[in-house]
Amino acid sequence: MELPLVLSPEMLKQMTPQEVEELIPLLREQIVDAVSQTGGHLASNLGVVELTVALHRVFDSPQDKIVFDVGHQCYAHKIITGRGPQMDGLRQYEGISGFPKREESEHDAYGTGHASTAISAALGLARARDLQGEQHHVIAVVGDGALTGGMSYEAMNDAGSGRTRLIVILNDNQMSIAPNVGAVSRYLTYLRTSKGWLNAKRALAAGLKKTPLVGNSLHRLLQRWKNHIRNIFVKDRFFQAFGLRYLGPVDGHDERGLEHFLMRAKRLTEPVLLHIVTTKGKGYAVAENNPSQAHGMPAFDPQDGSPRVRSVARSFGAAAGELLTRLADEDPRIVAITAAMADSTGLTPFQKRHPHRLFDVGIAEEHAVTLAAGLAAGGLRPVVAIYDTFMQRAYDQVMVDVCLQRLPVTFLIDRAAIGGEDGPTHHGVWGTAFLRHIPELTLMNPRSVDEMAHMLLWAMRHDGPVAIRYPRAEHMLQAKYPCAGFEPSRWESLEAGEDLALIATGPMVAEALKARRVLAGHGISAAVINASTIKPLDEGLIRRLSAAGTPYMVLEEQALAGGLGSAIGELCVQQGLTLPRHIFALPDAFIPHGSHDRLLKHLGMDGDSIAAAIAGLMERIA
Amino acid sequence: MELPLVLSPEMLKQMTPQEVEELIPLLREQIVDAVSQTGGHLASNLGVVELTVALHRVFDSPQDKIVFDVGHQCYAHKIITGRGPQMDGLRQYEGISGFPKREESEHDAYGTGHASTAISAALGLARARDLQGEQHHVIAVVGDGALTGGMSYEAMNDAGSGRTRLIVILNDNQMSIAPNVGAVSRYLTYLRTSKGWLNAKRALAAGLKKTPLVGNSLHRLLQRWKNHIRNIFVKDRFFQAFGLRYLGPVDGHDERGLEHFLMRAKRLTEPVLLHIVTTKGKGYAVAENNPSQAHGMPAFDPQDGSPRVRSVARSFGAAAGELLTRLADEDPRIVAITAAMADSTGLTPFQKRHPHRLFDVGIAEEHAVTLAAGLAAGGLRPVVAIYDTFMQRAYDQVMVDVCLQRLPVTFLIDRAAIGGEDGPTHHGVWGTAFLRHIPELTLMNPRSVDEMAHMLLWAMRHDGPVAIRYPRAEHMLQAKYPCAGFEPSRWESLEAGEDLALIATGPMVAEALKARRVLAGHGISAAVINASTIKPLDEGLIRRLSAAGTPYMVLEEQALAGGLGSAIGELCVQQGLTLPRHIFALPDAFIPHGSHDRLLKHLGMDGDSIAAAIAGLMERIA
Repeated sequence: MELPLVLSPEMLKQMTPQEVEELIPLLREQIVDAVSQTGGHLASNLGVVELTVALHRVFDSPQDKIVFDVGHQCYAHKIITGRGPQMDGLRQYEGISGFPKREESEHDAYGTGHASTAISAALGLARARDLQGEQHHVIAVVGDGALTGGMSYEAMNDAGSGRTRLIVILNDNQMSIAPNVGAVSRYLTYLRTSKGWLNAKRALAAGLKKTPLVGNSLHRLLQRWKNHIRNIFVKDRFFQAFGLRYLGPVDGHDERGLEHFLMRAKRLTEPVLLHIVTTKGKGYAVAENNPSQAHGMPAFDPQDGSPRVRSVARSFGAAAGELLTRLADEDPRIVAITAAMADSTGLTPFQKRHPHRLFDVGIAEEHAVTLAAGLAAGGLRPVVAIYDTFMQRAYDQVMVDVCLQRLPVTFLIDRAAIGGEDGPTHHGVWGTAFLRHIPELTLMNPRSVDEMAHMLLWAMRHDGPVAIRYPRAEHMLQAKYPCAGFEPSRWESLEAGEDLALIATGPMVAEALKARRVLAGHGISAAVINASTIKPLDEGLIRRLSAAGTPYMVLEEQALAGGLGSAIGELCVQQGLTLPRHIFALPDAFIPHGSHDRLLKHLGMDGDSIAAAIAGLMERIA
Repeated sequence: MELPLVLSPEMLKQMTPQEVEELIPLLREQIVDAVSQTGGHLASNLGVVELTVALHRVFDSPQDKIVFDVGHQCYAHKIITGRGPQMDGLRQYEGISGFPKREESEHDAYGTGHASTAISAALGLARARDLQGEQHHVIAVVGDGALTGGMSYEAMNDAGSGRTRLIVILNDNQMSIAPNVGAVSRYLTYLRTSKGWLNAKRALAAGLKKTPLVGNSLHRLLQRWKNHIRNIFVKDRFFQAFGLRYLGPVDGHDERGLEHFLMRAKRLTEPVLLHIVTTKGKGYAVAENNPSQAHGMPAFDPQDGSPRVRSVARSFGAAAGELLTRLADEDPRIVAITAAMADSTGLTPFQKRHPHRLFDVGIAEEHAVTLAAGLAAGGLRPVVAIYDTFMQRAYDQVMVDVCLQRLPVTFLIDRAAIGGEDGPTHHGVWGTAFLRHIPELTLMNPRSVDEMAHMLLWAMRHDGPVAIRYPRAEHMLQAKYPCAGFEPSRWESLEAGEDLALIATGPMVAEALKARRVLAGHGISAAVINASTIKPLDEGLIRRLSAAGTPYMVLEEQALAGGLGSAIGELCVQQGLTLPRHIFALPDAFIPHGSHDRLLKHLGMDGDSIAAAIAGLMERIA
C-alpha cells in the first residue's frame, strides 16, 4: 500500500481494518519525512497516529469538532484532512502551520499553541452547539501535561457542573515536554498500573490471538465483552469529582480498540473523559528513545535523528543556566524554577547539580511565578526561566505577587524575539509591552552572552525584581564587541557616527550594525548604541542627543505599541526633548510563521531594508 | 469582658477557654463597627473569627507564617496582631490596608488581593524554610471559591508531589463572592453531608453537653476520641490524588474543636488539607442573610446594614447588563460570562432572564475568556464581564484565544480606573497598557452610560474582538453632554477652545472639564475632546491639531507607560506630527489605597492640579 496523495476522513471511513493497519505506518513515515526536512514537533505527533485515525473513522469532521490541546500533535490530522501534499511546506513561510489554524482548514475547529486551553474551548463549542439545537460531537484531545496547567481544572470544574455533552481524550504519555511532574501524574500512574486495567489488557491480547483479525469478528468479540469490560475497568474518583465520567485506561496504539471506546464515548450524553495510554515518539526509535529531545526538532537526518545543521552560535539560555549553576554553588539562597522546560531553558545542569533547588512545576506558569514570590518572601533568591510567550500566562502574578511586593525574583525570559517557524503563538514580541509598565521591575535586553552574564550577576545582588529577555542564541555581529561590564540605565556606544544615531536593543543590534555598513556606502555616518536596559531608560543619553540635535532612530524586534521607542517617546513628551525620527518595530499585527530572516525581511526589519528606509528619511530631512 | 485596646497573639495564648469564648463576639463587634464606618469586606471576615483565634493560639506568628488567600478575611488577624487601634483608619488614605501587606506588619507573611495564590505562595515559604533548615509552620487559608481557580490546582499538584510539610485550611462557606459553582463545589457538599461527618458532629455536640466546659476536660474528651474520630471521618479521594492528606470536615465555628484539629495538622510532616465548614457573615444577621451583598460593603448603618450614602450616579455595569439583557431577547446568539461576579458586574438581570445563557465559571478568568473564544468559534456572540484588575489574569487568553483568531468576543471591563479603598491589587490602571498592543482588538472608553450603550450596540455588530473599559459609575459632569452616537476612531469635541486642546479619556474627561473652567479664569481657552476610542486612535484629529499648531495635552487615569498618550506619541514619531505638550497620567508606581478623590489629588491628577500645571506650561510656551 502507498499513502494516497490526498487523504480525506471519508476515504479513511471506507478503508478495511486491514487497510487502516497498513495506513498507520505510512502516516508515521510521512510525519518523520516532513519533520526531518522542515523541523517541527516530532514525538508528540508520532504518539497520536492511531488516535487520530480512530477519531476520523468514528467522528465526522468538520461537523464534529476536534480540539487539539497545544496543537503540537495535529500532523496526522492535517494529512488525513487533505493537507498531505502541503506537508513539505510545513512551518515554512507561506506554508501550512505546525498548529491547528481555523483559517487553514474547516477541519481545524479551534486554533491552539499554548497549553491547557482545549477543554475550555471545547466546552464553549459544545455549549454553542446545545444553545443552537445542533447535535454534533465535540472532542478535546489533551495530553497529561495539560493536567499540570490550572486552566484544565477550571474547565473540568465548569464542564462537569453543567453536564454538557463533551468528550475529553486524555492522551497519557507520561510526559509533557519533559517527563511529567506532580501528584496528578502519580494518580494517572496509579490508574495505568491498577489491576483492572492490566487484566483487561492481557485478556484483550489473549482474545485477539484467538480471533482472526477480520473487522467484524473483532467487533463481535468486543460486543460480547461489553458488560465485562465495564466492570474490570478502573474505579476513578478524581475525574468523577470534577463531574466527568471516566473511561479507561485504554491502549492508545490499538486503533481498533480505540474505535470501540470512542463509539462508546460517542453514545454518552454527559461529559466523559477517555484515558488512553500512548508512547511519545511511537514507531520511530530515535524519538521513542529520547522523546524529550524529539519534542521539538530542527531539520534532521531521518536515519539517526542527527540535526542537518549544527548551530555554532552560543545559546543565551544554556549560558545562563551554567552561570546560575556556578553561582548557586556559592550562594545557597539561589533556587531555580521551570515550567516543564528545564532542558530548553538551559536549567538541566542546575537540575543535575542542585536537584533539590530546581523546581519543575509542570506547565504552570502562574504557579511558577507565585511560588517564586513565596520563595523570595522566605529569604531565597529564585530565578524563573520561562519563554517570553509563555510568560504572558503569568502577567498578573509578575505584577501582583512579585513586583507589588518588591520581591527579589529574577526572570530569565528566553525566545524573546520573533520565534520563527512556530508562528504567532510562539513569537516573543510583546514582552516589552506587557512588562515595561509594571512598577519596580528592571527590564534588560543583553546583546551578547557576556553582557547577559553581567546582568545576571547584577540581578543576583539587586534587591528587587529583574527580567532579562533574550533570543535563543547570540548574533556574532553584535557579540563580537567586548563587554566591559554592565550598569543599568547606561547604554553602550558600539560604533561612533556623526550624522545620526541608531538606538537598538536585543537582536536588533545586529541589524543596526548591518544598516550602518550600508549607510556608510551612502555617505551617511551612523552611530550604533546598544540599549541594554529598557527600564530604566538611559535618560542622560537621550537628553544629550536631543541637545546636540542629532537625529536618532530606535530599532527593536518587539511590538511598536508599548515598546522601547514608545518609552523614549513618553520621556520626550514629559521632558520636552526631541523625538526619535522613526521607530523600527513590529506592526500592529500577528506575525505569521516562517524563518526568522524571512520574516524580518517581510517586515522590512532587516539591516538592508532599515538602511534603505533611513536613507530615504535622511534625504527628506536634508 | 471588654476587648483589650491592643491585642497580641501572646495575650490570646494566655487566655482561658472561657475568655476566648467571650473574646470572639467582641472581635466580631469590632469588625462590624469598623466596616460600618469605612466600608470593606464584611461577610468573609465575620466567617473566620474562630479560625483566626484558633490559628493564633495554636501557631506562633510571625515565626509561623499564615497566608490568607485573597486576603479579604484578615481583619480579625489584623486586630489580634496589634492593629485594633488602627481599625478606624481601615482602607483609608494612609490608614491600614484591607488586605495583608508585608510592609504593614511582620505578621502579614505574604500580601494578597487576587484569588487562588495562597497555596503557591505558602509552598514557596515552606520550601524556603526547608532549604534553610528552619522548622516553623506555614499555613495557607483558602476559601472554597479559590478552588474554582486553576492556580490552586497547579499548586496542590506541586505541593503534593514534593511532600512538602504545609497546612492548607480550606474554609468552606459554600460561597466565593456569589454562591459557589462547579463540580468541585458539589464534591465538597458530598464531603460535608456525608454520614461520617454528621455523626462526628452529633457525637461531639452530645459529648460537650455532658462535659463541663472547663479547658482540660474538653481536651481530655477529645483525646479519648482521637482514634475514634480518625475513623468516622470522611474518606476523601480527591485531595488525596493531589497528594494532600485530608482532614475534616470540621465545624469552623467551634473554636476549641478547631484548636484540636490544628494541633493534629501541626504534628503531621506531610502536606495536609484541613476542611472546615463556616458560615459567611456569621454572627451578624444582615450579613448572614445576604452574604453576597455583604461581601464588599460601603460604609453602612450597623443596625440594618443600609448604606450611609446612596450613590445616585448611574452604574456602567448595571446599565450594560440591562441593555445586554434586552439585546439578548432579540438575538439568541448573545451569551454572557462572569467569573463569580454576576452581581457586581451587572449581569444579574441577564442571569434571571436568560439563565441558560449566563455562564458563571467561578473565579476562573482564564477559562472564562477561552470558553468565550470557544462559544464564539461555535457561532455565538459572547460577552465577558470582568473587572479590569482581574482581566490581568487572562491577558494571554485575550491575545492567543480571542484576538489571534479574530473571534467576536466583547469584553465589558468594569472598575477600569483607580479603584479606591481596596488599593493597589484592585486599581484598574493597566488595562490600556496590557490591551492596547494586542492586534485585532478594538479598545474603547465611554464617557457616559449613553455612550457605552452605543459602543455595546456597535460591538454586537462588529466581527472581531472589542473591549469596553469603564469605571464603576458615570460622572455627572461628563455625562451631561448628550451622546449623539458613536463611531470608532472618531473622537468627540465636548467644548471648544482656542488656546489649547485637552484630549481626555474615560473618567478623566470630568477632570479636563474642571481644569477648563479654572483655566478660563486665567484667560486660557481650552478645548475638551473625549477620546472615546483608544484603539484605533483618531489620527485625523491629531493630524489637524498638529497642522494647526494647537498645543494639546492628554489626560488619562491609566499608567503613563503604554497608555493613550504613549499611543499618540508613537503616531507622532512615525508620522512626523507635533507631540502633545504633556501627558497627565499615572506615574510608574503602585498606587496606595484611599478614596478616589484623595488619590487623584495625591497624584496631581485632579482638575485643579491639572489646571495649575497647564497654566505653568502655557506660561513657559508663551
